[in-house]
Amino acid sequence: MATVPDTRITTVSRDVLPAGGSLAASARISVTLDAPEAVVDLTGELRRLVAESAVTEGTLHVYCGHTTCGLVVNENDAGLNTDMNAVLERLAPHSDHHPYAHDKDRTPAERAVHGERDNGHSHARAMLATHPELSIPVTAGALYLGRWQAVMLAEYDGPRTRELLVRVLRA
Amino acid sequence: MATVPDTRITTVSRDVLPAGGSLAASARISVTLDAPEAVVDLTGELRRLVAESAVTEGTLHVYCGHTTCGLVVNENDAGLNTDMNAVLERLAPHSDHHPYAHDKDRTPAERAVHGERDNGHSHARAMLATHPELSIPVTAGALYLGRWQAVMLAEYDGPRTRELLVRVLRA
Amino acid sequence: MATVPDTRITTVSRDVLPAGGSLAASARISVTLDAPEAVVDLTGELRRLVAESAVTEGTLHVYCGHTTCGLVVNENDAGLNTDMNAVLERLAPHSDHHPYAHDKDRTPAERAVHGERDNGHSHARAMLATHPELSIPVTAGALYLGRWQAVMLAEYDGPRTRELLVRVLRA
Repeated sequence: MATVPDTRITTVSRDVLPAGGSLAASARISVTLDAPEAVVDLTGELRRLVAESAVTEGTLHVYCGHTTCGLVVNENDAGLNTDMNAVLERLAPHSDHHPYAHDKDRTPAERAVHGERDNGHSHARAMLATHPELSIPVTAGALYLGRWQAVMLAEYDGPRTRELLVRVLRA
Repeated sequence: MATVPDTRITTVSRDVLPAGGSLAASARISVTLDAPEAVVDLTGELRRLVAESAVTEGTLHVYCGHTTCGLVVNENDAGLNTDMNAVLERLAPHSDHHPYAHDKDRTPAERAVHGERDNGHSHARAMLATHPELSIPVTAGALYLGRWQAVMLAEYDGPRTRELLVRVLRA
Repeated sequence: MATVPDTRITTVSRDVLPAGGSLAASARISVTLDAPEAVVDLTGELRRLVAESAVTEGTLHVYCGHTTCGLVVNENDAGLNTDMNAVLERLAPHSDHHPYAHDKDRTPAERAVHGERDNGHSHARAMLATHPELSIPVTAGALYLGRWQAVMLAEYDGPRTRELLVRVLRA
């Protein structure tokens, strides 16, 4: 539990919560991913939010409001990250060397927002290999994760700073 | 917010809700997808249901009770839809030119229900690229979606009319 | 509803629940998968837990705390299982004949836990084709599943016995 805080993860805001409801905690966290393909482990931060919420039985919900990155629950292992990038390069090759209609379609305004990068492959990879949202049980005051499980944000269009909405709901 | 109603989406029924609980709205909506591979954007309809529920903090849940289509959260862009169909044609080629054990297995009764179409690829594509259900936060009375995010029903076995169960739960 | 109990599924424990909350039932179930790639249909067991909870309107939540298997909602058909294994063999070939960095990375302790098996492909397949958790509506006292839908645990690193946390929440 004495995890070292990850400097790539910061709390943007804590939302004011309605009294008397099941919503025990709500936070927006920002996550900085420093490479085109990158993974940041959110598990320590999520455990901290559950502990602070003082919820004994309930659900943690994480929502990723982006379209070229997403949430993954698996083992946090450097080799595995390398393997998944190799698998996804076969399934949805990088826009640098593979044509995507999405990249041709984009307006100059959209390009400006995306930092001029072609990212057809990033959308496809996020759809194939990640989840936009996750509900994880909170039981006996702790996040119910398996021995090898980590909750991660997987980036396919970095470097970028992303924002996630994390909520703890009392059961 | 002044979205034009999509004529491909209609409300089948509004369920009677138990008093005093967290279930604020429940609706069955039907969605008509007019091609073998098609995408319908549900976002406007979902925002409307959240507004009508008058829920300030809570969760929207969408459930797709089908096995050859599913839910996607990503950018609604024609080019991207074309790209995903090309990616999925490589990963799970169409039953017209690729053998699936599923298509050989089917009984005449199952074939009749499926309109006699072979659809092994449709099952595989739905499993690889879609979600059967989604929980999306409702906060400050609105659906919490990212700037580029749309919630879509992606069809891989059309044309068909599908039914979804949409519920808004108060936190 | 008169489904024959599946001897591969057993109840490990029923958790003591807090009074007055929305958590109506909580159980840990163990599932034995007897081959390297295997599927067990959980639908009958989940319907039984919903019935026992006496919840009329709410949500069933299933959580899989593992990294080389996962949950699938689709048709339970032997042909389809064969097809998905063939699709996944193309997308993430078996560790027996394809190199994964994950398999080279593992420590002797990790190898011992994994039964000395290389399982890079198992992680990749679970990430591509399964969900770690599912929320399924309970309405009118029953699990809301489509005509062809089954909820299954799909194993990619068997034979193993797995544990799932299943909860029924009142709305």
